[in-house]
Amino acid sequence: MLRRYLPILTWGAEYSRRTLVNDLIVAAIVTVMLIPQSLAYALLAGLPPQVGLYASMAPLVLYALFGTSRTLAVGPVAVASLMTAAAAGAVSAQGTPEYLGAAVALALLSGLMLIGMGLLRLGFLANFLSHPVISGFITASGIQIAAGQLGPVLGVKAGGHNLPELLSALGRNLGQTNVYTAAIGVASLAFLFWVRRSLKPVLRRLGLGERSADILTKVGPAMAIAATTAAVWGFGLAERGVGIVGTVPQGLPRLSLPPFDGALWTELLVPALLISIVGYVESISVALTLAAKRRQRIEPDQELIALGAANMGAAVSGGFPVTGGFARSVVNFEAGAETPAAGAFTAVGIALATLFLTPLLYFLPNATLAATIVVAVLSLVDLGALKRTWSYSRPDFAAMAATIVVTLADGVEAGLVVGVALSIFLHLYRTSRPHVAVVGQVPGTEHFRNVARHDVVTDPQVLSLRVDESLYFPNARFLEDFVNESVAGNPNVRHVILVCPAVNTIDASALESLEAINLRLKDGGIRLHLSEVKGPVMDRLKRSHFLAELTGQVHLTQFDALSSIHPELARRTLGVPRRRSPEHSPPTGPRKSNSTKREAEHD
Amino acid sequence: MLRRYLPILTWGAEYSRRTLVNDLIVAAIVTVMLIPQSLAYALLAGLPPQVGLYASMAPLVLYALFGTSRTLAVGPVAVASLMTAAAAGAVSAQGTPEYLGAAVALALLSGLMLIGMGLLRLGFLANFLSHPVISGFITASGIQIAAGQLGPVLGVKAGGHNLPELLSALGRNLGQTNVYTAAIGVASLAFLFWVRRSLKPVLRRLGLGERSADILTKVGPAMAIAATTAAVWGFGLAERGVGIVGTVPQGLPRLSLPPFDGALWTELLVPALLISIVGYVESISVALTLAAKRRQRIEPDQELIALGAANMGAAVSGGFPVTGGFARSVVNFEAGAETPAAGAFTAVGIALATLFLTPLLYFLPNATLAATIVVAVLSLVDLGALKRTWSYSRPDFAAMAATIVVTLADGVEAGLVVGVALSIFLHLYRTSRPHVAVVGQVPGTEHFRNVARHDVVTDPQVLSLRVDESLYFPNARFLEDFVNESVAGNPNVRHVILVCPAVNTIDASALESLEAINLRLKDGGIRLHLSEVKGPVMDRLKRSHFLAELTGQVHLTQFDALSSIHPELARRTLGVPRRRSPEHSPPTGPRKSNSTKREAEHD
Repeated sequence: MLRRYLPILTWGAEYSRRTLVNDLIVAAIVTVMLIPQSLAYALLAGLPPQVGLYASMAPLVLYALFGTSRTLAVGPVAVASLMTAAAAGAVSAQGTPEYLGAAVALALLSGLMLIGMGLLRLGFLANFLSHPVISGFITASGIQIAAGQLGPVLGVKAGGHNLPELLSALGRNLGQTNVYTAAIGVASLAFLFWVRRSLKPVLRRLGLGERSADILTKVGPAMAIAATTAAVWGFGLAERGVGIVGTVPQGLPRLSLPPFDGALWTELLVPALLISIVGYVESISVALTLAAKRRQRIEPDQELIALGAANMGAAVSGGFPVTGGFARSVVNFEAGAETPAAGAFTAVGIALATLFLTPLLYFLPNATLAATIVVAVLSLVDLGALKRTWSYSRPDFAAMAATIVVTLADGVEAGLVVGVALSIFLHLYRTSRPHVAVVGQVPGTEHFRNVARHDVVTDPQVLSLRVDESLYFPNARFLEDFVNESVAGNPNVRHVILVCPAVNTIDASALESLEAINLRLKDGGIRLHLSEVKGPVMDRLKRSHFLAELTGQVHLTQFDALSSIHPELARRTLGVPRRRSPEHSPPTGPRKSNSTKREAEHD
Repeated sequence: MLRRYLPILTWGAEYSRRTLVNDLIVAAIVTVMLIPQSLAYALLAGLPPQVGLYASMAPLVLYALFGTSRTLAVGPVAVASLMTAAAAGAVSAQGTPEYLGAAVALALLSGLMLIGMGLLRLGFLANFLSHPVISGFITASGIQIAAGQLGPVLGVKAGGHNLPELLSALGRNLGQTNVYTAAIGVASLAFLFWVRRSLKPVLRRLGLGERSADILTKVGPAMAIAATTAAVWGFGLAERGVGIVGTVPQGLPRLSLPPFDGALWTELLVPALLISIVGYVESISVALTLAAKRRQRIEPDQELIALGAANMGAAVSGGFPVTGGFARSVVNFEAGAETPAAGAFTAVGIALATLFLTPLLYFLPNATLAATIVVAVLSLVDLGALKRTWSYSRPDFAAMAATIVVTLADGVEAGLVVGVALSIFLHLYRTSRPHVAVVGQVPGTEHFRNVARHDVVTDPQVLSLRVDESLYFPNARFLEDFVNESVAGNPNVRHVILVCPAVNTIDASALESLEAINLRLKDGGIRLHLSEVKGPVMDRLKRSHFLAELTGQVHLTQFDALSSIHPELARRTLGVPRRRSPEHSPPTGPRKSNSTKREAEHD
């Protein structure tokens, strides 16, 4: 039990000296990568730079205690930072203590929600965020973040919570571009793009291994930061209007519980929920991907608790919402992290940096941080997904496109809410019109197929309808209409058979519809039968009055149903010879079974 | 085309003199039943009595033109009247011209929405109202209406939009009970209950036919009204404080378009939508039930247009929202209505009553009208449905109970909204954890069954998972977790086969999950295969990159899949003898087919 909630007890028991050395090396690499990211994402969230560092200490230690992934690296990430900025910006102005308080409160609420969801096993809530919605949302967030960082890159003030606001502010203030800032920003951008695109081949040619080359490209931002900080310091660019990070308070954050503020917390409930779910979805996806490479196990509910603990840790140490980041987790993994201890050591690295290195960050230009963000988030933008989704599924495309458009036009919250609502709506719409086929007997077999597609035998007195979907409220009335329509058009019908092999469930609405159909058919002198009802569905039907009221019978197979209604026709059709040698050959070798083929050729 | 939108062109062409006489007789009977109902439901909606009569003219004529049901009788009904009172009461005080204006605007908006839904074929929106929700809502509405009429029955003032408000107002004012009013009210109640329960057997004993007896019991309210009106007039009870209908303006309503009022209409949008959908659901259910008895066809989309037209008619003639009523439609049907013309003639009957009979209604006591409402709505209350639903399905019970509780405690709108949201949520929750079985080969056959329930043969290197649900976003991540969990626990596994006979669809989220599963398994040295994929699902998969990336293959049958991976085991297992004579007997007589049995015995 304790092991379930504290995975550290499992891996900690096997911890060896070799693992320790390994984890320490990994931690050093990830620390170098994480420092600029932490500063940059704090900037993106509209917070002082040290808040980013604070959010990269306690959360990592807590995740190491509670997380089931061996290699997930948590900390501030781009999308959650954007969402934090949107939510905190909605309740107070950037730069005020209230704004910082709101960010901390978001981490606290998010932590509480995640832990609650983990303990109550509510992880399925994340399922409501369909892939097209999350993908569209991340693409739109990436575009918006990149657009928002163009201002800092050029040294132009441009704020806004959606793309039109950002772009119009940018356009208005473009005349105020600071040449030095722009030079640093554009040069950093160019360098970072080059690192991302072309550094690895260069390093490989210099004889570095695949992994080392990969990891070295990930410390590109640190190099850009070192170079531009030196340039600002050397050429005295801060006096020429280049925005710099300035004084970053030295020392570790003080631990304190954020003050209770009912009104503020109520306002932040929805954003905190959205941040929690988006963060969880991204995090679990990274964790599963990395775990699979080593056949390790990820416990989704425990991951909720671990992420919740990490956010609580961020909240009590003056940080802001954190989650598992993709790039840093991959670096962690590829550098060879074997246990979550690597994360804890990374936290120590960040703590050391906070204690001793912050003076070095004084001349760090904001433009460089902004450039690192732009380069990082552009990898989130996947407009190709729109095309792929379009060709695969129009409803999914609609949900994705709506999410992108609304996120960009109105903001992150509206985008997510509209996307989720639309995908649920379209899902219900699709299931509200299930595929129903009129089926007839394939001559010479006991099989029944769609009359519209196959040469089959039917009895004018018997209407056999195969419903290719579970029966539940979104399609219950559809079935009533369909039967009414079918029977009204067939005056000779005396029996209706619902063929149910694809019906995985019948809910109370569908049961009511079946009862209504049964009574209506009875009034019209028609008997209703069921065939091929699955076991669990039958068990449940037995708990209702339906079977007692049913005018017809429930048959194990459709052939049984037809045989009992019109035995002569069923047998005659079965007797018709046809090419059926494979089906009736002795069972000694592999053969095509019609039984499964029938399902495979769902018509 | 024109016939589709004007069903009158179809039945009108065959209209004969015999049908005319028949429809005229029916209209006379329904008119007698409809007058007290119209007055009572106007009272229930908090409107002047003549508004009820107005709502029983134009709508009937318009429904006769556009409706596809031959026997549906539209007009004011209890639940829509309650919802009208709630919505109009939220924007203005009862008795004011604004209140009447709001009721008329509700009819107009409801009419526009229904016509729009009909033209755009959005009838499926009604599906979102699951049966437990509508059933719970109607039960709660019935309880609330009955409680609300106790005041008028006793001559006590008691208003409120939910049960606690109503009951506390009733309790507070119970001391002001008017003895004469209470005497009339209670006597009417007793008489009407007696009519409903015991009049029919008495009439049958007097030699009346089944139908005539049925119909005569339906005019009970008219008798109560005649008797109590006479009593109030004869004994001068109006001067003793008995509330009477008073002056009902004589003459037909003037036709006029309700004035445009953006602010008001915006406020009424949600209530109008709810009234439309609840009305439509009830109406279509009555229409289908009656049509089935004569094997007639109901076009759901055209019904939306017809009900919309009826509500537009109500709006331009000073009425309030109408829909198809159950009791009056049954009377219409049983009295022998053959065409919608009977409805149009009923409208003429109501018009004549409005022109000439309203002075007779002067002394009609409100208590009698209230008593007719109580007796009518108590038949809507079906608390037994709670028990039936509990034993059939807990989630459906939860949705029903929540709808009842919230409707009674907070009001009709909140009740419906909570019920719909909860039923959608529970539906998604249920589908988020589909049944997945590990399957193995049944010795001596090509069939595969759940290893947990059957004595089957499995290969430790092959993990065959049968998913008994379509794959879409609510369960996409569940599948990822399930595969991760299964593989992490089976270190020998080299092949995972997803057996998909029950998968009716794979949406973009599930496709993404399958791609992720494929890549993750690949990283772990495992190949992913699919088997028994349905045709339409396969067609769609071919439009994606998934099949190109799939490490394994897609097999027509699970036996094929196993044969290609481990041919020896598959054949050996197939060769194991077992009792399989029925399956391999020559196809001359009825036999149990294993093919269908396998599906029927869904394990």
